[in-house]
Amino acid sequence: MTDAIPTDPPPYFLAHVFVCCNRRADGHKRGSCAARGSEKLKDYMKARAKELGITGVRVNQAGCLDRCEFGPAIVIYPEGVWYRAETREDIDEILLAHLVEGRRATRLMLTEHDVVPKG
Amino acid sequence: MTDAIPTDPPPYFLAHVFVCCNRRADGHKRGSCAARGSEKLKDYMKARAKELGITGVRVNQAGCLDRCEFGPAIVIYPEGVWYRAETREDIDEILLAHLVEGRRATRLMLTEHDVVPKG
Repeated sequence: MTDAIPTDPPPYFLAHVFVCCNRRADGHKRGSCAARGSEKLKDYMKARAKELGITGVRVNQAGCLDRCEFGPAIVIYPEGVWYRAETREDIDEILLAHLVEGRRATRLMLTEHDVVPKG
Repeated sequence: MTDAIPTDPPPYFLAHVFVCCNRRADGHKRGSCAARGSEKLKDYMKARAKELGITGVRVNQAGCLDRCEFGPAIVIYPEGVWYRAETREDIDEILLAHLVEGRRATRLMLTEHDVVPKG
């Protein structure tokens, strides 16, 4: 929106991970991340990040991130990089690539082409 | 963590607002943002942003952001700027300053000095 403002405080978390844990009723046409298993993946990610000794990172659940069709959806700030993680192995890959090595888990990234169909 | 990586997709949301809606049992020594009214403030912020025609912004609830003592806690990414909002007027001030005018609602910002006491 604007350039960085010099008086902003330093980042409180170096990386802030949000895992969509929204749950819709079974049979809803959009489905939901929780129905796709995101709650357990969030718990795993939180525990695994701790186990790996990754510091300065917080993993939080979030309400509907509105990319349901491409979920379980995860977004990591401040980069604003989105991922789809369906398994514990996917979570491990994101933790290692993005949060430990500062790279990207390219295979799992959502892109600008992963948009919600309108209507 | 690393410099921006040129292949990252463009931001999916121009601003992504997370309002802590964690609720602890009454009487917990840390209290909680929900106990301080954050759920209604989140609903108000969402509705008010729409009413003001602010586009590209998503307001989400989040799990415990771990700044309970300074809540109701709100963080806005990608800037990673934190606010404490206690009233609808505070929410209006944040929406106008940060999201409409690209400034800061300085009076309500959390800083590096607003840290959780240990132990």
